[in-house]
Amino acid sequence: MRILQWHCEYFRYKVTKPAMKNIPENRDEEEKEFRNVLVVLTCAEKNDIAETARNAIIAAEKHLKEVNADSILIYPYAHLSNDLASPSIAITLLKEMESFAKQRELEIFRAPFGYYKEFETKMKGHPLSELSKTIP
Amino acid sequence: MRILQWHCEYFRYKVTKPAMKNIPENRDEEEKEFRNVLVVLTCAEKNDIAETARNAIIAAEKHLKEVNADSILIYPYAHLSNDLASPSIAITLLKEMESFAKQRELEIFRAPFGYYKEFETKMKGHPLSELSKTIP
Repeated sequence: MRILQWHCEYFRYKVTKPAMKNIPENRDEEEKEFRNVLVVLTCAEKNDIAETARNAIIAAEKHLKEVNADSILIYPYAHLSNDLASPSIAITLLKEMESFAKQRELEIFRAPFGYYKEFETKMKGHPLSELSKTIP
Repeated sequence: MRILQWHCEYFRYKVTKPAMKNIPENRDEEEKEFRNVLVVLTCAEKNDIAETARNAIIAAEKHLKEVNADSILIYPYAHLSNDLASPSIAITLLKEMESFAKQRELEIFRAPFGYYKEFETKMKGHPLSELSKTIP
């Protein structure tokens, strides 16, 4: 799993249209805004398992505390790897991240998978505001 | 070379602080804004050569025309790979991209290398607005 973490002053997204047939969740009207958020752009890869998803949340939680962000937004992002998991595995792993973060009592949100989305953001630009990781 | 291309309604960046000793160019006050721009987040990798840089511009030019953007912003982005070129090679390749784009009479800009930067953007969200590529 590849993740790219941004500490953002704000982050808004809006679903524009489906990016695949058989979208695994119906969220085609969604539009959200977050403030002081850690956005975790997430790319599930082949061979990722539930433990990988949980490790990603552990990494994000550490980063959240370092930068003093209020919440985590899991944002599906296929552009970080050439070795993608299948859509059905990817959505399962994203949901595992969300449920594991809830168990840890983090303020967690998950943007929809399988849609094109526009986004608008201000990424803070301090030395810890952008991190990328390969999650084992 | 890994690139991530965004078609943005606007993209602003502002240098915040140096990210390394011996910054290869002194641009520590820089702040710029672009409209209807193709941002090419660029990560130079080991084994990249001048031809790789030129291939990246050829890919970006094709994308620029498809989405009808006005200009290209080369934006150094180390977060797209674990196999980075050295800083001295990376800056050479970024400059090669810039000069090759000028030869092709593209409207080209290059954000500074070696600095932390904040950015603010609206990424358009249409089906061709985000592309990632590994450039041979």
